[in-house]
Parts: sequence; C-alpha cells; structure tokens
Amino acid sequence: MKSLTEYLWMNTPTERALINITPQVAELVRKSGVHEGLVLVNAMHITASVFINDDESGLHRDFDRWLEKLAPHEPLAQYAHNDTGEENADAHLKRTIMGREVVVALTNGRLDFGPWEQIFYGEFDGRRRKRVLVKIIGE
Amino acid sequence: MKSLTEYLWMNTPTERALINITPQVAELVRKSGVHEGLVLVNAMHITASVFINDDESGLHRDFDRWLEKLAPHEPLAQYAHNDTGEENADAHLKRTIMGREVVVALTNGRLDFGPWEQIFYGEFDGRRRKRVLVKIIGE
Amino acid sequence: MKSLTEYLWMNTPTERALINITPQVAELVRKSGVHEGLVLVNAMHITASVFINDDESGLHRDFDRWLEKLAPHEPLAQYAHNDTGEENADAHLKRTIMGREVVVALTNGRLDFGPWEQIFYGEFDGRRRKRVLVKIIGE
Repeated sequence: MKSLTEYLWMNTPTERALINITPQVAELVRKSGVHEGLVLVNAMHITASVFINDDESGLHRDFDRWLEKLAPHEPLAQYAHNDTGEENADAHLKRTIMGREVVVALTNGRLDFGPWEQIFYGEFDGRRRKRVLVKIIGE
Repeated sequence: MKSLTEYLWMNTPTERALINITPQVAELVRKSGVHEGLVLVNAMHITASVFINDDESGLHRDFDRWLEKLAPHEPLAQYAHNDTGEENADAHLKRTIMGREVVVALTNGRLDFGPWEQIFYGEFDGRRRKRVLVKIIGE
Repeated sequence: MKSLTEYLWMNTPTERALINITPQVAELVRKSGVHEGLVLVNAMHITASVFINDDESGLHRDFDRWLEKLAPHEPLAQYAHNDTGEENADAHLKRTIMGREVVVALTNGRLDFGPWEQIFYGEFDGRRRKRVLVKIIGE
C-alpha cells in the first residue's frame, strides 16, 4: 500500500469564500503514484468545509445566500457559542451543512469524477491561516 | 490490496426520486472478493446524492417535503444559478443537505450495516442519465 | 494491509445528546497498529450521527436549538413517518444535517487532526442501545 499526506494552507482575505482546490489535489494524486485507491480531502478547522459541486459563480452566490438564511451570522447574541468571545457560531453551522470532507475514488491514476465535479474549500470564518488535509492511499 | 470500480447508471422518470441501491452495491461487494476494507459509493453528478437511511415510504415523503421547504424549487428567479438557463439551482442545494457520498465498512466480506441501514440514490433533477460510482478497496 | 473493526455501544439517558468519542477512537487507532491509513467512524443507526466539530458546550446548545428549528420534533403529525407509530421522524432529518460518518486520516500512527477537531456521537432518538462502527485500514 502506498500513501501520501500533504497539507494545503489557506488564508482567505474575506470572511466567506469558496475556492476551487481541484488542481492542487490532482497534482498530489500524480505525485503519489497511486493508480487505484482513495483520496480523503478534509478541512482541518471546524469553521471551514471541503465539498464537491459545480464551479459556477451564480451557484456560489446562491450557496452563500442560502447558508446565511439557514444559519444567519446576526444577531450574534442568538448563539451561546458567541458568549465565549467568538463571533463565528454561524460558521460552525454553515460548515456542518456543507460538510467537512470528501472521499474521491482514484482510478487509473486519476480523480474518478463525473463531468461537473470539482473540489471546493469553503471558508466561513476567514482571514486566518487554516489547513486542508489531503490523504491518498492505494496502489 | 484488491480493488473494484463499477458504475451504476440511473435515469429516473420523475424530477425527484429516492432509489434503494443496496442490492447492487452488495452484489459488487461479493464480486470484488474483498473481505476487509471500505466501499465508497458516490453520485457522480452534482444534483444527485447517495446517502444512508431507512427504507420507509413515509419517511421518503418527509424527506421530499422537508428538502422542498429548506431549498424550494420556485420561484426560479430567486437563484442566480438559474440565470444560466438552468432551472435546477435548488437541486444543487438539496443534494448538499443529503450528501454526495457514503463510505461503508466491509467486514467478513459483507456491508457492515446496522439493522436499518440502506443505501439510497437521491435524484433531485431527474430525467437524465447519470452515474453512481462504487469503489471497493481492501483485502 | 492491516485492519481493525470495533463497535462502541451507546445508550444515552436523554432523547438528544452529543458525546465526545475521540478518546475511544484514538485508543482503537493505537490498538490497530496502523501508521498510515484511514479510519471510518459511523453511526449504525439512522437516527444518530457521527460528526467532527468543537468540544464547546455553548456550541452544542446552539446545534441543538438550530436542529430543532430546521427539523422540529412537533407537531408529530407533520411527518408521514410518524404514522407508522414512531415519533422520531425529526431524528432522521436531524441526523441527515449532522451526517452519518466521518473519515479521518491516520498519519504516523495518530488521528491527523486540526487543533479543534473532535469526534462526536450525536443522538437524536435516545434511550436505546445503539452502536458506532470504527473501521481502521492501512499499514
């Protein structure tokens, strides 16, 4: 069994952002030399997400508005977590909707994707250095 | 390490549907000859889902109504994604709630399931040919 | 390839509960002897969840209130599933938001976690014996 472990550093200039990290993951798949296996990609911080969807800017605006409706940032006092001095309780909830991780099949040495699948980093509490873990196992 | 990769084709006659794909996945597990390992089952399209829950028709109606409440199909103009000519922005959101994938343990050559666990394909933008990926790795 | 399969038994005294199971999972990782690989941790029941977030009691209250807003327990008659004699339709929906499973990387024989990541069992229909599956594969 081969394995490869790498960390991608993220630091978004805005509070919320969606970033396509497919090229970086695909490059690590090549580097790993794994032909048949699995790749796990996960946010290592609990106010961020890794998910798969379409790289379409209108959809990304829809995600942003929709998450704000399901888990609004304000009023801050609606969340007990914000009593700790944080203002990011909503970011924990938004990340929960979007998910922490994806597991993707590697087939013939490539990400085995449908036509529109792309891997995104979802940031909901930005302007901090955070990491994404990429773990590849297989043969 | 053994591995097996197969694709299930789906094409639902209705816009939305939940289909139990456990028998097909179990058959592929047998075919793989893997006794200890993992199986990844994921939708390859970003308006569809693979998830695990109960095979109970009332619950399936509840899922459908609930998703329509959290991410309504109409009005179409509420979603920027629909400005591209699509009418399926809500399907992207519904699939996000339900999840893209499941990872299931294989133990003694079988899906290691609790008493009510069943694998479902969730379609939220049907009447198109789409694929589900089944990837099995282990020994 | 090495593997290890274990089951954690849960039985919460309350209807809903969040329980940190990181120590148990970390102990099983040690027991497995796996240095590089993956661990799958999943609820085996469809009204419970396994997820990763912060071990902060205020946040846990926020999760509880938020889930009750997105998928309220009452009125019971709003859910077709409850016509079967169950009263737990909302628990199926809450578990869907929180997720069935997590997959965590094992690196150098340890859970490869960010600074605040902890694994939780989420119970939404308690006072019953239920199991959590821990499956470790790697080398």
